[in-house]
Amino acid sequence: MNPVSYEIFHAERLKDFVRAIFESQGFSEEHALTCAEVLVSADARGIDSHGVARLSGYLRLIEKGRINPKPHMVFQQERKAIAQLNADGAIGLVSAPAAMQRAIEITQELGSGWCGIHNSNHFGIAGYHALMAVEHDFIGMAMTNASPLVSPSGGKERMLGTNPIAVAVPAGEEPPFVLDMATSAAANGKLEIAQRQNKPIPEGWVMNSDGTNSKDPLALKAGGLLLGLGSDADHGYHKGYGLGAWVDIFSGVLNGGSFGPWAPPFVAFLDPVDNQPGKGLGHFVGCWDPAAFRDLQEFKQAMDLWIRRFRQTAPIDPHRPVLVPGDPERTLELERKESGIPIISAVVNDLENISQQCGVSL
Amino acid sequence: MNPVSYEIFHAERLKDFVRAIFESQGFSEEHALTCAEVLVSADARGIDSHGVARLSGYLRLIEKGRINPKPHMVFQQERKAIAQLNADGAIGLVSAPAAMQRAIEITQELGSGWCGIHNSNHFGIAGYHALMAVEHDFIGMAMTNASPLVSPSGGKERMLGTNPIAVAVPAGEEPPFVLDMATSAAANGKLEIAQRQNKPIPEGWVMNSDGTNSKDPLALKAGGLLLGLGSDADHGYHKGYGLGAWVDIFSGVLNGGSFGPWAPPFVAFLDPVDNQPGKGLGHFVGCWDPAAFRDLQEFKQAMDLWIRRFRQTAPIDPHRPVLVPGDPERTLELERKESGIPIISAVVNDLENISQQCGVSL
Repeated sequence: MNPVSYEIFHAERLKDFVRAIFESQGFSEEHALTCAEVLVSADARGIDSHGVARLSGYLRLIEKGRINPKPHMVFQQERKAIAQLNADGAIGLVSAPAAMQRAIEITQELGSGWCGIHNSNHFGIAGYHALMAVEHDFIGMAMTNASPLVSPSGGKERMLGTNPIAVAVPAGEEPPFVLDMATSAAANGKLEIAQRQNKPIPEGWVMNSDGTNSKDPLALKAGGLLLGLGSDADHGYHKGYGLGAWVDIFSGVLNGGSFGPWAPPFVAFLDPVDNQPGKGLGHFVGCWDPAAFRDLQEFKQAMDLWIRRFRQTAPIDPHRPVLVPGDPERTLELERKESGIPIISAVVNDLENISQQCGVSL
Repeated sequence: MNPVSYEIFHAERLKDFVRAIFESQGFSEEHALTCAEVLVSADARGIDSHGVARLSGYLRLIEKGRINPKPHMVFQQERKAIAQLNADGAIGLVSAPAAMQRAIEITQELGSGWCGIHNSNHFGIAGYHALMAVEHDFIGMAMTNASPLVSPSGGKERMLGTNPIAVAVPAGEEPPFVLDMATSAAANGKLEIAQRQNKPIPEGWVMNSDGTNSKDPLALKAGGLLLGLGSDADHGYHKGYGLGAWVDIFSGVLNGGSFGPWAPPFVAFLDPVDNQPGKGLGHFVGCWDPAAFRDLQEFKQAMDLWIRRFRQTAPIDPHRPVLVPGDPERTLELERKESGIPIISAVVNDLENISQQCGVSL
């Protein structure tokens, strides 16, 4: 087992770098800035698998022509509460915030607003987009489909992505409630940690291509499959499958994006399969205004009470208090704001290569 | 292990009985009919724990004055897309369909509509309410909080109900997609089956009050706790907790209902705790119109393709094809429409007692 070494970067330095890289690829200043914001927010919040570690993957998709650096994104709106965005092959880091901005504007008018997105690409962390709503005192929801890696319960075929759901709810004095979860049993990031440490993984994360369980952190790379939340029939795998399916339908089927086993892979060395049933990845974002349900101050006080009471739940281990969804990421965010973001050396190497390749200093 | 004996009832007979029972309690004809529809639909769909088996529980709540048989339900609507229903202590079997009907009307106008409900009671199966939207070619969503039985991850305190989420999506030639899931690892119904069979339950469903795991189907009744979907830290318990928390916030906190450990218990022998932070249980229902996102026929064709492709997923066991959420309940519904609904003798006894007590023939 090799010790993992890190280098510390301040968020601003990473953001400047990422912005300059996307600009070097022909992105507008505004789009490059948004990409940097979304990507580095993942590193800042400790979701390292979705931060600058993904930068080289995005660049390969740009090189392959699968991400359009200069998209002409077009909104359509047939009905008052719902808009639809054809992202024109944009990176999701740009299309999802644009769609959420539209959903926020509709919510300001009506109390709830929605935007579907198709012809898009990987959108980073779902929580970023949901949290945009919280800045307006709205509840935000965001979901996306993704490269097929997860099998439905009872199956042994890659049919779904890790399809995340995020819901962010504002509070009063307390910080917001943020649920941001992959619908698979384990996110890819956890596999990567086990791979680096060369440690066996728990049963219930991955199976081999023949449907047998595996504890090998490399089983997925060897053609295996991720399992849905619940992991087996006794523990509600059909629920994890159902949640992932819901996200796939809302992201792809509803918006005219691709879906299921056809969803375009994130890795550029795999081409999307032929006969796509839709265009690109799809996302689904929107908001509700709590003030449309009850008095906003009363709502915020009730949220504060909810959060404080749940933090006081009798803990199993007296040294590990019960947390509220969003707490772990927020704690890391504060820590990393203070003392910087540790980037593992493999990713630092990656960034150095990108720096050379694009002529942008790190 | 005792063999379980059943008696077969046709759905119409059960509905007539349930309707007459609620009428005998002072419910209007319309409300009694709705109760019968919602309750017996659970038995018809195989969710036996939420059907007529609950009737005696509802009656005890009426007797205790906790369910108002003659509610004066009042809608408020401050913003165009969102309504709020004060259910005036109604049974949820009545308030949730009324709220969904309002959400459907808003959706007809705007493309999406929502209704929060507070001051309500247990609403039966979430799937019934979500499916109301499908009759209008809309996507329906329904959730509710419930008696606290489930602990947050890391805790050993009853803080959440089994808080279900239902999402129903119309298709074209294929039947609708119906996700209807408790956010706990196992629903109470599964525990009851194990109790009747006196069989140990899988680890990961229940813990004892000290936070240790239990395989005893009676551990919950002995003061234990249900676990959230995911069951342990390695398998995503924090996700099941997050989903249950989401439902609690949307049902209770957002609408002015009670929430968390304060949510009123379903069993009438337990009084709601003092200093309630809201009124009664809360529910959250609403819809999206797929035709507001894309052409309805194209959407339905894409849903048909999704459903057919997922049914063709390579199965682990060639004799057990992969199902689509909603399939198991629909198969049972067709079967039970044909040959009747098997009711276990304990519940038949219960119904016979109710029949005598209310002077309504079974």
